[in-house]
Amino acid sequence: MTDSASPEPQRRRVGFAVVGLGELSAEELIPALRTSQHAYLAAVVTGEADKGRAFARAAGLTDQDAYTYGQFGDLAGREDVQAVYIVLPNNLHRQYTEQAARMGKHVLCEKPLAANTEDAEAMVRACREAGVKLMTAYRIQYTPHHWAARKAIQSGQLGRVKLLDSIHTQVEDDPGAWRLSREQAGGGPLVDVGIYCLNTLRFLLGQEPEWVYAAQHQPGNDPRFKEVEESLSFMLGFPGGVIANALTSYGAVKTDTVRVLGEKGSALLDPAFAYTGLKLSLTDAQGETIPKFVAYDQFTLEVDHFAECIRQDRQPFTPGEEGVQDHRIMDAVYRSAREGVRVELERSGSQDRFRTPENPPKLP
Amino acid sequence: MTDSASPEPQRRRVGFAVVGLGELSAEELIPALRTSQHAYLAAVVTGEADKGRAFARAAGLTDQDAYTYGQFGDLAGREDVQAVYIVLPNNLHRQYTEQAARMGKHVLCEKPLAANTEDAEAMVRACREAGVKLMTAYRIQYTPHHWAARKAIQSGQLGRVKLLDSIHTQVEDDPGAWRLSREQAGGGPLVDVGIYCLNTLRFLLGQEPEWVYAAQHQPGNDPRFKEVEESLSFMLGFPGGVIANALTSYGAVKTDTVRVLGEKGSALLDPAFAYTGLKLSLTDAQGETIPKFVAYDQFTLEVDHFAECIRQDRQPFTPGEEGVQDHRIMDAVYRSAREGVRVELERSGSQDRFRTPENPPKLP
Amino acid sequence: MTDSASPEPQRRRVGFAVVGLGELSAEELIPALRTSQHAYLAAVVTGEADKGRAFARAAGLTDQDAYTYGQFGDLAGREDVQAVYIVLPNNLHRQYTEQAARMGKHVLCEKPLAANTEDAEAMVRACREAGVKLMTAYRIQYTPHHWAARKAIQSGQLGRVKLLDSIHTQVEDDPGAWRLSREQAGGGPLVDVGIYCLNTLRFLLGQEPEWVYAAQHQPGNDPRFKEVEESLSFMLGFPGGVIANALTSYGAVKTDTVRVLGEKGSALLDPAFAYTGLKLSLTDAQGETIPKFVAYDQFTLEVDHFAECIRQDRQPFTPGEEGVQDHRIMDAVYRSAREGVRVELERSGSQDRFRTPENPPKLP
Amino acid sequence: MTDSASPEPQRRRVGFAVVGLGELSAEELIPALRTSQHAYLAAVVTGEADKGRAFARAAGLTDQDAYTYGQFGDLAGREDVQAVYIVLPNNLHRQYTEQAARMGKHVLCEKPLAANTEDAEAMVRACREAGVKLMTAYRIQYTPHHWAARKAIQSGQLGRVKLLDSIHTQVEDDPGAWRLSREQAGGGPLVDVGIYCLNTLRFLLGQEPEWVYAAQHQPGNDPRFKEVEESLSFMLGFPGGVIANALTSYGAVKTDTVRVLGEKGSALLDPAFAYTGLKLSLTDAQGETIPKFVAYDQFTLEVDHFAECIRQDRQPFTPGEEGVQDHRIMDAVYRSAREGVRVELERSGSQDRFRTPENPPKLP
Repeated sequence: MTDSASPEPQRRRVGFAVVGLGELSAEELIPALRTSQHAYLAAVVTGEADKGRAFARAAGLTDQDAYTYGQFGDLAGREDVQAVYIVLPNNLHRQYTEQAARMGKHVLCEKPLAANTEDAEAMVRACREAGVKLMTAYRIQYTPHHWAARKAIQSGQLGRVKLLDSIHTQVEDDPGAWRLSREQAGGGPLVDVGIYCLNTLRFLLGQEPEWVYAAQHQPGNDPRFKEVEESLSFMLGFPGGVIANALTSYGAVKTDTVRVLGEKGSALLDPAFAYTGLKLSLTDAQGETIPKFVAYDQFTLEVDHFAECIRQDRQPFTPGEEGVQDHRIMDAVYRSAREGVRVELERSGSQDRFRTPENPPKLP
Repeated sequence: MTDSASPEPQRRRVGFAVVGLGELSAEELIPALRTSQHAYLAAVVTGEADKGRAFARAAGLTDQDAYTYGQFGDLAGREDVQAVYIVLPNNLHRQYTEQAARMGKHVLCEKPLAANTEDAEAMVRACREAGVKLMTAYRIQYTPHHWAARKAIQSGQLGRVKLLDSIHTQVEDDPGAWRLSREQAGGGPLVDVGIYCLNTLRFLLGQEPEWVYAAQHQPGNDPRFKEVEESLSFMLGFPGGVIANALTSYGAVKTDTVRVLGEKGSALLDPAFAYTGLKLSLTDAQGETIPKFVAYDQFTLEVDHFAECIRQDRQPFTPGEEGVQDHRIMDAVYRSAREGVRVELERSGSQDRFRTPENPPKLP
Repeated sequence: MTDSASPEPQRRRVGFAVVGLGELSAEELIPALRTSQHAYLAAVVTGEADKGRAFARAAGLTDQDAYTYGQFGDLAGREDVQAVYIVLPNNLHRQYTEQAARMGKHVLCEKPLAANTEDAEAMVRACREAGVKLMTAYRIQYTPHHWAARKAIQSGQLGRVKLLDSIHTQVEDDPGAWRLSREQAGGGPLVDVGIYCLNTLRFLLGQEPEWVYAAQHQPGNDPRFKEVEESLSFMLGFPGGVIANALTSYGAVKTDTVRVLGEKGSALLDPAFAYTGLKLSLTDAQGETIPKFVAYDQFTLEVDHFAECIRQDRQPFTPGEEGVQDHRIMDAVYRSAREGVRVELERSGSQDRFRTPENPPKLP
Repeated sequence: MTDSASPEPQRRRVGFAVVGLGELSAEELIPALRTSQHAYLAAVVTGEADKGRAFARAAGLTDQDAYTYGQFGDLAGREDVQAVYIVLPNNLHRQYTEQAARMGKHVLCEKPLAANTEDAEAMVRACREAGVKLMTAYRIQYTPHHWAARKAIQSGQLGRVKLLDSIHTQVEDDPGAWRLSREQAGGGPLVDVGIYCLNTLRFLLGQEPEWVYAAQHQPGNDPRFKEVEESLSFMLGFPGGVIANALTSYGAVKTDTVRVLGEKGSALLDPAFAYTGLKLSLTDAQGETIPKFVAYDQFTLEVDHFAECIRQDRQPFTPGEEGVQDHRIMDAVYRSAREGVRVELERSGSQDRFRTPENPPKLP
């Protein structure tokens, strides 16, 4: 093994503060910032000063780059921190986003955008009024795999699409997890993992559902599901009679798939939402094709997109509005599940209504 | 290659008349009777005398073994014909079953059992009154693959089952096909291919759905779908909060899968309903297992079960009542799709309520 | 199910006598003749008169169409029998082929063509002198899967081919099987299953090996392998520095694969030699493609090719010479394994030297 | 996302200097040290001072932790650097290992251990005399996947093993790569990627080959292959008549597989040697099993094993002797390829002769 290129300098890259140092930050986001073309880690924010300093040093930063939640406002004085990446429990998204906006920092916020639609809408407003950008961190809208699937679907390669099917389930074992708290999470598996099904189906079609029907199950005797549903099934009606089914759960083993059935062909993503190892299979009369993509890191692509939006003053492909729309649909899903009736949604004919199709991500 | 065993003699095997010489009869049922242990082809019944005689001779029978539909009643005098296998358009099932019952012939009838619930119930009554057996030809309830899946599910190997998902779609190209006639078929893809999803989900759980919700699409401008739906999605609520999704269509490419998600593991049948090449995959914390089965012919197993029931005077595992139950549920599915409301079904706590669990098929 | 087309009449089809009623004849060849476009079963020849009559009747023939081996010569008078399909132990191939040739019958002979090179060459001579056609029944040279692989390789789709690898193994359990008799089989797994590797590698490249190295194992204490090898590995050197490895055995579980590695892509057949379920996968920089083919029966395609050759007076794609060449190479393989040295083969620059490239099979 | 555990302190972990900052170091080894339980990165050594400092800072070290090759001797004074990880062109392995040994540093050396057998033996001697440990970095001997395969094979789960087959090929595009220099690499694809086949086959069986036969191809007109072979095939004879085939190349697309065929079952690793995504499939009469393993980093496991050996003063599972043995076999492979004859190897009956079976790696 001989020497390869050394890392690029940080000139002209966008400095990020990562707010919240959970598993996702530690294992995915901070490493992603390390390999980013356009962004770099400039600061970390967490609850415990010690932990923050340890992370900072491990990432090649100094003790001065570690902030406690109480010191979040001090980032105002950090000119090199142009953006914050919010990786906190859902009910804290609004507060930190609003504060960041007031400080003039751009906001990349983990999904779901908030703990409820009202908060999500407030976040969009706050960022708009402050003149900062807000991006919903929907990583599947930034990968070559999902874009190849979208292209196959929208180009007519599968013929007219008729039906879709998606599943995202996993087991949540810890009864004390904040994800099982209605107040902190705003819902159960739907808002955390089922949102991938919803979001991906909408992204692949580029269209909005017109109605929804849902059913859920919340076992009476399981300490984990005192506040939120364990399992939920929903059916979406898209324009033109296209129907999609979806399943989500915190009580069933990890499964993540999307299947799209057209008159001439079909697409299967399985796994569809994993951090690595995504597989797309396209089948038509000629056979099955499994396209190959250059290796990439999903989080790096997402972060790079936002960094470029900031540098070029462009709206991200998945702005806050895209996150708000999923909240509206999830509201309808929960209402349907509660009341046992089909719920109509506002109809919109335009393609990619809540996205920024003129600014798609650059694919590697 | 040296000589192997010659075919068995027909002594003690049950003679069948196949009624209807379509593709299924020609390519699957008649070859299946040829390799059956307990049954043999004794006569054929079809619309054209020439065709019947050609089939008879090709199958090693004589011209006297070929009957036209008009001569169906002549089978009464054929003592060697103990059973008929009805492979006709759905709306003819009742008439031929009733006539066969009056002649004292046992009836194996293709799915769906009839063109509607009323006819299906009448068939059960007619056979009961005549003292002949009636079996619904649900081949997936007779295969090692589906029984292994059922065992994995009911034994607790997957932990408690939470969610299920099934798809059965195919393209029906011919606008003149009897399957697209409401009168002849009694419905669209639901009664022909979607019935596999319904039937398999019920068989795997051994339980009956308590409610159903459905949505369908019937395009206004497609000459194929003037009378029946093109696509249909349905959701089933099973006891204990278990929810199943299903998709069926005559407008989307061939797809047939069943997925069962438990708290400890999952089962995937894909393809789930094909005549050959069925694949079962069981996944749990230890990994994935794809069990291997000795080679078998699905139709042979089905026919052999019925032949043994006749010889031993036992009720088939899938009697007429099992077929009637699917008709009742499909009625509810269509009603839900038409009215946009959830439809409640009669609740029953007993396991395998419409089957004969004390007489399961012998698996090879 | 409604009526479909009745079977075609036998006018203008070529009548075959199947000589030897083993498993292959019963389960593959006779069913294949039943669905053939250009051939039909006209007679059967076997050791026991009873068994022959049973087969004849089961196949819609009469007792007069069943012959014992002793009555083989009586086929001379059967004008409707234009060809014989030899499915006997290898050491009987020559005798029956020569007799058939003398009777003016064309000969389709199972692989290996004979029990040794001398017999194989004699068969070619006998058929040439009698003016009848001789075809080696190499079914893999008649399938869409193998032709698609060959096309990918020879068209340059994979770039220049560098290396190949093939495996064909299965367990032979019966110590009394004629396949384990050197006299009857002429060799062990090499001549029975390893020949597929050899034949397919040659077919895919369209070229002949220039040298061979081999090693074998014959356990001292296994009653099955008193006369023939249990396992054998051979390496083939093809023109241009292309090297192929192959493994064969009667002592290892069923495995059948072929892999071709080029500078730009690779091809994998796995299973490569099974009667059904063949799978071809082509991989290049764009990803993996698994072509889909219309359903076909390998034996029907093979038989139909020979029938057409007879009707059109053309040389089969795999004439006797193609079978002789494999015998020559297998001689070299065994010599190498015995002596532990590399054995040179006669070099030939021409493409498809022992085949009839101007008369390729018609693919469905 | 909430906070998770912060990184462990470096107390009691073994400090490593990584010598050579090529792609492997940058993308695999340094990240692996970051997640190691027992080791940490204490220094880097490279050719250019600037590059070294950039790497050091990116890794949270200081400028003082970056050394040029000329400053390698300065590590002598670094008490916190207990071990060096040599990631240099093969012909430099000996010199740096000997110097490290003299400084009392333990040596983990990339494969192949050296550029030739003599150097490899000298390295073993030098480390033995200096009382430091030497480990050959054979990562596949430290993964759960390969250990599970080894267990299946050695436990008899597959029955007696009869045949093995392995492939490792990739395209080397750059004519100037040191891997294509005989002086620097010591050989072609065999010593770089083919060594994986050799090493894995030996590890899986726990036995040593008794003879080898090989053939190679070195095109006359390709500027990349002026000094080393492009492709090479080798056959190994193991005790008991077990035969293994292997293919390696720098001219064929990336392929890495190992297949083991037994009398009752088979094992397939495909991919077999990739950094991620390894897949093991075990097949027997019951079907196919694909075991699941907890997520792990291959390099972390390897580095952790060596760190534990240092702390506990134990011999590594793959000491220098294991690397020497592959050099001896590769010498025989090249001699066979040059001379066209089978080459006998020294015979040894003992299991895991060159490994340390009493100190197997701890599997996660």
